[in-house]
Amino acid sequence: DPKLKVFTCNANPELAKEIAEHIGVPLGNAQAVRFSDGECQIKLNESVRGCDVFVIQPTSAPVNEHLMELLVMVDALKRASAKSINVVIPYYGYARQDRKARARDPITAKLVANLIETAGAQRVITMDLHATQIQGFFDIPVDHLLGVPILAKHFSEKGLSDIVVVSPDHGGVTRARKLAERLEAPIAIIDKRRPEPNVAEVMNIVGNIAGKTAIIIDDIIDTAGTITLAASALVEAGAREVYACCTHPVLSGPAIERIGNSKIRELIVTNSIPLTEEQIIDKITVLSVAPIIGEAIIRVHEELSVSKLFD
Amino acid sequence: DPKLKVFTCNANPELAKEIAEHIGVPLGNAQAVRFSDGECQIKLNESVRGCDVFVIQPTSAPVNEHLMELLVMVDALKRASAKSINVVIPYYGYARQDRKARARDPITAKLVANLIETAGAQRVITMDLHATQIQGFFDIPVDHLLGVPILAKHFSEKGLSDIVVVSPDHGGVTRARKLAERLEAPIAIIDKRRPEPNVAEVMNIVGNIAGKTAIIIDDIIDTAGTITLAASALVEAGAREVYACCTHPVLSGPAIERIGNSKIRELIVTNSIPLTEEQIIDKITVLSVAPIIGEAIIRVHEELSVSKLFD
Ligand SMILES: Nc1ncnc2c1ncn2[C@@H]1O[C@H](COP(=O)(O)O)[C@@H](O)[C@H]1O
Ligand SMILES: Nc1ncnc2c1ncn2[C@@H]1O[C@H](COP(=O)(O)O)[C@@H](O)[C@H]1O
Repeated sequence: DPKLKVFTCNANPELAKEIAEHIGVPLGNAQAVRFSDGECQIKLNESVRGCDVFVIQPTSAPVNEHLMELLVMVDALKRASAKSINVVIPYYGYARQDRKARARDPITAKLVANLIETAGAQRVITMDLHATQIQGFFDIPVDHLLGVPILAKHFSEKGLSDIVVVSPDHGGVTRARKLAERLEAPIAIIDKRRPEPNVAEVMNIVGNIAGKTAIIIDDIIDTAGTITLAASALVEAGAREVYACCTHPVLSGPAIERIGNSKIRELIVTNSIPLTEEQIIDKITVLSVAPIIGEAIIRVHEELSVSKLFD
Repeated sequence: DPKLKVFTCNANPELAKEIAEHIGVPLGNAQAVRFSDGECQIKLNESVRGCDVFVIQPTSAPVNEHLMELLVMVDALKRASAKSINVVIPYYGYARQDRKARARDPITAKLVANLIETAGAQRVITMDLHATQIQGFFDIPVDHLLGVPILAKHFSEKGLSDIVVVSPDHGGVTRARKLAERLEAPIAIIDKRRPEPNVAEVMNIVGNIAGKTAIIIDDIIDTAGTITLAASALVEAGAREVYACCTHPVLSGPAIERIGNSKIRELIVTNSIPLTEEQIIDKITVLSVAPIIGEAIIRVHEELSVSKLFD
């Protein structure tokens, strides 16, 4: 059977290490460094000839650096005769540029999909895409993992009572319903309008909130405008306490300050994106996606091996 | 005839302005900005429907930011129904990763060519590629402009006597010969070995140097190790004075300090890459490539219009 090898660049080496441990393989010997002028240099220090290779690299900030590292790594693996190149992108950057929201907008989420395929990736494993349509931007298999089971397990173990799961917008209702089902709770929806990017505004709440423990769920928390205003609106509408959770803690600009000052009691996130020093605050709990990604990699590797029988 | 429009991102807006002025068109109304999380946002504020569009963007440092701006801009232009998308890359970044110099190296110069085509570019105008083979990395037309005529004109006007044109390595001999022909001068070659990237070492000089005015020519000056050691070697070998010139002033790391402390009397560069505040020192003279790029754009636009007759 072709050997399974796991590599990483610089976006989330800790997660990659955890995933490799879960699978039971050593992390591949490679480095993504920089030449003096800032150009990305990939040093692939071991053979990958004939191997099923998995590269773990969320395209989190600095997104263009991390994306380019991934593309150059895939190019190096391709030219080094890897049998299959599977990219694991726990957080898929540029996902919010997934349609022409205004005239002459680019569709960068599609461009990035094309770039990844052009570099030579043959399969993508990702998590909680901002829009599930992005799967269709690829012409290669996409395994789409969900953060909800991990988040649900955490809340179940807390033993909270009288829960209502809240979607901060209409686009997130399916996700909220999935969490609600696992927690056997009802859902509510916040009817929000956003006047411009990175500025959020909360409108009225659809659903029963009074006296309940509200859990707001989103895929991405970026500047945290949406979620903190949602928390205020929920408290005003009589929620007993407010938790929040998301898969991808982008947490840019004023996010940490806003969360610190907000009515949110605890924010649960995953390690799809690593937190920086300043982003690690008491209110934030980080859950690991390493086991579910590790399992996905093991399954894909088995599948790739089985298919050999039919070649 | 389809209208000619010139756009720019953030890599060299001054050069783009000069080029637009040379052509006699206003610079197109577009901006490359950043979302809060660092993702690139292209705002295309005017119609490009049916136009021949030229985007001026060297992929200079920060290379990954500038490359991504270019790719997203091309994506936006494509989706906005531009008739033709022509990218003008006066300095082509990643050009030195043009072959597998070591086992398992990526060939990033080829990857970048693929990325640019994938985004939707239909023609490339570039200058002094580090390796002319990079033209063949593209499956679309490449117009390859040379900096030598501009540099030669400058030296001719200086009225220097007893010139010898020096190539700092074997790879640059063709370029040195082109400059030497225009200056009616002989050439010399420095027989150099480079132990590792960004570290240069000067060996012996092939050719007659004693008592002469040496002009070293290179395509790129990056950390300036090569060129400043070459200058020392030339002075030691009896050169009367040493000038240096290049098309692309990358000037990373210790470059400016090295040039300041070197035996080089004057360094002539072009504005294919803009100099930063700290890179502007007395010893460096900047010549503009705007006229030659402007002329190339006019010619290409005429060609694109003429071809309509045969459509
Ligand atoms: N990185 C980003 N940060 C903030 N807003 C973005 C980003 N990328 C895209 N957008 C905008 O977010 C909107 C899409 O978000 P959504 O409605 O949640 O799918 C569009 O108006 C985009 O222009
Ligand atoms: N941005 C860069 N800075 C310094 N060295 C580089 C860069 N890109 C590639 N190289 C190295 O430069 C060598 C090629 O340069 P050359 O021999 O001048 O064509 C190869 O060994 C590359 O690994």
